[in-house]
Amino acid sequence: MEDIKYAPIGVFDSGVGGLTVAREIMRQIPEERIVYFGDTARVPYGSKSKETIIRFSRQIIHFLRTKEVKAVVVACNTASALALETLQPELDIPIIGVVTPGAKVAANTTKNGKIGVIATESTIESHLYTKVIRQHNPRAQVFGKACPLFCPLVEEGWLKDPVTVEVATRYLNPLLETGIDTLVMGCTHYPLLRPVLRQIMGEKVNLVNPAYETARELKELLEQNGLANDGQRPPEGTMHRFYVSDAANKFRQFANTIIPYGVDTTQLVHIEDY
Amino acid sequence: MEDIKYAPIGVFDSGVGGLTVAREIMRQIPEERIVYFGDTARVPYGSKSKETIIRFSRQIIHFLRTKEVKAVVVACNTASALALETLQPELDIPIIGVVTPGAKVAANTTKNGKIGVIATESTIESHLYTKVIRQHNPRAQVFGKACPLFCPLVEEGWLKDPVTVEVATRYLNPLLETGIDTLVMGCTHYPLLRPVLRQIMGEKVNLVNPAYETARELKELLEQNGLANDGQRPPEGTMHRFYVSDAANKFRQFANTIIPYGVDTTQLVHIEDY
Repeated sequence: MEDIKYAPIGVFDSGVGGLTVAREIMRQIPEERIVYFGDTARVPYGSKSKETIIRFSRQIIHFLRTKEVKAVVVACNTASALALETLQPELDIPIIGVVTPGAKVAANTTKNGKIGVIATESTIESHLYTKVIRQHNPRAQVFGKACPLFCPLVEEGWLKDPVTVEVATRYLNPLLETGIDTLVMGCTHYPLLRPVLRQIMGEKVNLVNPAYETARELKELLEQNGLANDGQRPPEGTMHRFYVSDAANKFRQFANTIIPYGVDTTQLVHIEDY
Repeated sequence: MEDIKYAPIGVFDSGVGGLTVAREIMRQIPEERIVYFGDTARVPYGSKSKETIIRFSRQIIHFLRTKEVKAVVVACNTASALALETLQPELDIPIIGVVTPGAKVAANTTKNGKIGVIATESTIESHLYTKVIRQHNPRAQVFGKACPLFCPLVEEGWLKDPVTVEVATRYLNPLLETGIDTLVMGCTHYPLLRPVLRQIMGEKVNLVNPAYETARELKELLEQNGLANDGQRPPEGTMHRFYVSDAANKFRQFANTIIPYGVDTTQLVHIEDY
């Protein structure tokens, strides 16, 4: 039997956004293999109910386990906010999401205690960012704002478009008025809008990308559990594997713009069978 | 056994948009009962692949048949464009979509033979509107334009917002320049943007809403097949039934703004089990 240290890490998202998290894992722990799943048949998750997100996430984790992953990263803020707490006790391998790492860094780095969170409707309504930020900084004030048009704008490719600036201004103005010094980009698509967010929020507001902290926490978690790959590398070209529930070709095109790894081997999975 | 004439009509869509078609059926054939299904767990369909849309539509039709419907209306342009042709031969009851009725009226009413079609990415890429328009008007020139931000803007409720006007101007300018005299609103969400579309296209361009023609064709189809309800009415409050795959509460709120019927009885269905 293969040593579990050499097993891959399962990473999933509702679609392509989680690739920004996969990219960060590849950068910080380059010796670890990734099995990525993007639920492109049922994307987006951001406006859907907790019950449905739990059902979808459970199917995906079941699929990832068939690939013998040693740990799971929920690289989707909505699934982290709505499903992680329910699914964690069902698993005997480590699982982490992106909300807690992002919330912790915001709680610990704010100077004036005023933190903004932008995310999908379902993530904001879950209040999980607020809860975790308060656990680490009880006096913090948290201002959440759902930004449902950001993902469609990113997917349309209008990353620096005047329309995007106008939409972002509309969404962010109420946050600007609160005087926040920290803004959590609580959806994996949002870091792609960083230049627009920076332009509107100004130079003094710290923009937090949970992907960075998630990869750092993952590294610690693997080490603590004796699961870190100690250096064995698989043959070239078999390092990472990619699966989607719809339109593998389209995924490949987008993925190749985000991560420095050939994703030619992306395979289609009927995820509702898991 | 109940007479099949008194059976309901199955109507489905990826979400709430198909309610604009249901509304038109209620208006034109008020004696017919409707069983509506909105696939709110997997919405939107507009950027997904043919294979996936066929699989989803097949599950939904299977579900509708458990409700003993006498006919099926595909009240979603994307599913009509991608799945109808494949699914029709599998069924022994009549099924119609919204694309053919909309294409026919555009083909038959254009004066200068120049027709624009706005729709989702997948509908435009299917070229079905172009094909059906040409069948009825071989000299017609058809100009298609995908408008992926329209549905998110409608769902955000920005129906007459300056941002929506700017986005619509961007999408419609290339169509304006072609000199079209007819524009098909090829997605069930788009009639909700009619005032903005009218403002940009001007008074002389005819805006075609396929919902109207679909209800008219459905009426004919029922009569031709001896399936029309000849007047028997069910008890008050049991006329129509509504099912969704996610978030029944949210659906109810939106539905009540579109159709003149109490949808308090909306039920949740795990559609992937069908």
